[in-house]
Amino acid sequence: MLLEKEAFFVDTLLHYLCVNFTHLFSMIQNIRIAVDAIVFGYQNGKLYVLLIQQKFGTSETYWALPGGLVGNDEPLKEAVQRELREETNVEVNYLEQLYTFGDDVYRDTRNRVISVAYFALVDSSKLSIKADTDAEHAQWIEINQIPNLAFDHNKIVQKAIERLKAKLTYQPIGFDLLPKYFLFSELETLYCTILEKEIDRRNFRKKILSFGFVEETDKISVHNTGRPAKFFQFNTKKYNQLLQEGFHFEIKFA
Amino acid sequence: MLLEKEAFFVDTLLHYLCVNFTHLFSMIQNIRIAVDAIVFGYQNGKLYVLLIQQKFGTSETYWALPGGLVGNDEPLKEAVQRELREETNVEVNYLEQLYTFGDDVYRDTRNRVISVAYFALVDSSKLSIKADTDAEHAQWIEINQIPNLAFDHNKIVQKAIERLKAKLTYQPIGFDLLPKYFLFSELETLYCTILEKEIDRRNFRKKILSFGFVEETDKISVHNTGRPAKFFQFNTKKYNQLLQEGFHFEIKFA
Repeated sequence: MLLEKEAFFVDTLLHYLCVNFTHLFSMIQNIRIAVDAIVFGYQNGKLYVLLIQQKFGTSETYWALPGGLVGNDEPLKEAVQRELREETNVEVNYLEQLYTFGDDVYRDTRNRVISVAYFALVDSSKLSIKADTDAEHAQWIEINQIPNLAFDHNKIVQKAIERLKAKLTYQPIGFDLLPKYFLFSELETLYCTILEKEIDRRNFRKKILSFGFVEETDKISVHNTGRPAKFFQFNTKKYNQLLQEGFHFEIKFA
Repeated sequence: MLLEKEAFFVDTLLHYLCVNFTHLFSMIQNIRIAVDAIVFGYQNGKLYVLLIQQKFGTSETYWALPGGLVGNDEPLKEAVQRELREETNVEVNYLEQLYTFGDDVYRDTRNRVISVAYFALVDSSKLSIKADTDAEHAQWIEINQIPNLAFDHNKIVQKAIERLKAKLTYQPIGFDLLPKYFLFSELETLYCTILEKEIDRRNFRKKILSFGFVEETDKISVHNTGRPAKFFQFNTKKYNQLLQEGFHFEIKFA
């Protein structure tokens, strides 16, 4: 790191340059680039997003999406994985690019920052673990309980929810949010929760099972108060095989 | 602009700072942010993309997508519209964000540049005009004739074509590429061209007309060598009304 004297010297010089050569510095691009992660989790009929607490200045504490500046030699997708790991301790193998936020020039009041937002879905069984170990800095917040976030992060979360709703109907992403073995009723409830409406459960079950990649297992739920229910699982191999054969996943809701 | 003496002074100082404070400068983000535009046009059964000729160094001339660095106080979407206007003289009202390219750290060999790519569709009647006035710098190049482009621009174009193909099946975007009045056979050919396959023309016609937002006009084609054909038009008002009522456009092709 810098010695204090060096830092002072550089600072003085840069200040001199900025004051005396404003016309030159205005020609140089002065925009920072960041990444932000929207990580969704699901449990017991509720959709969660992973947030962190950030401190700005002396007193204001804001909830925000995990994220930060991109390293000079760092691919975007590695930057977002690193920020997630550093700030929340959550490892996500795959994040999908959502959108780049750079139309609002003042979205960060300190500097012009353009943010490339990524989103990911994680298995619900990971939720409880993380809530324990990182509760102080990172927390799973239910989607209906999201407070005012820093910057334009509420807008980013909103965009991610829209994408999630849309994808649910044309990709079998719901399974990414469930544990390996799930009750069919849990899958139905997940769809209802994310789409924010009731679905025709009989048609839904018929349709999903007709695809052939959701399989009944011989595991039986013992927790349920009603009659015993079978656990199901998603067969990734079968799904990929169907995709190769030109299959298009699609579920319509009236 | 800078006086020569000033420029020399700033240059010397910056060089001094870089040499003596490498450890400081490596901590400062040194990434540029650019926008690139993929503008599609369509005419006579062929899909075109708008390209410009760029000079690098002294002798190398490359075709490239129109685009450039974002201004410090410039929203991303304004930057891409400005670049398009400056480099091709083409005005486009709406561009959709495609993807942000920033995983390949060396996509520009001169500096790290992250590019936010946007795509747009323009009415085919605009194609001939532009080919006349800006032929030297900007040109409509047929999709199958695209040469090796600068940077990773071939990859960007490929991504845009994939998005275009996908959107064609769930949004009525084909009409944006056609003039106000078009023959039904032209719409069919457009779908065949973009999807790169034959479609069932009878089913396609039946399906499209069943939506109710493509209307027969009383204009009749006189150019055709076969029997006279009626011109059609897209009714935007009707389409928006249907959207509000919860209508989802969708065309499937076997």
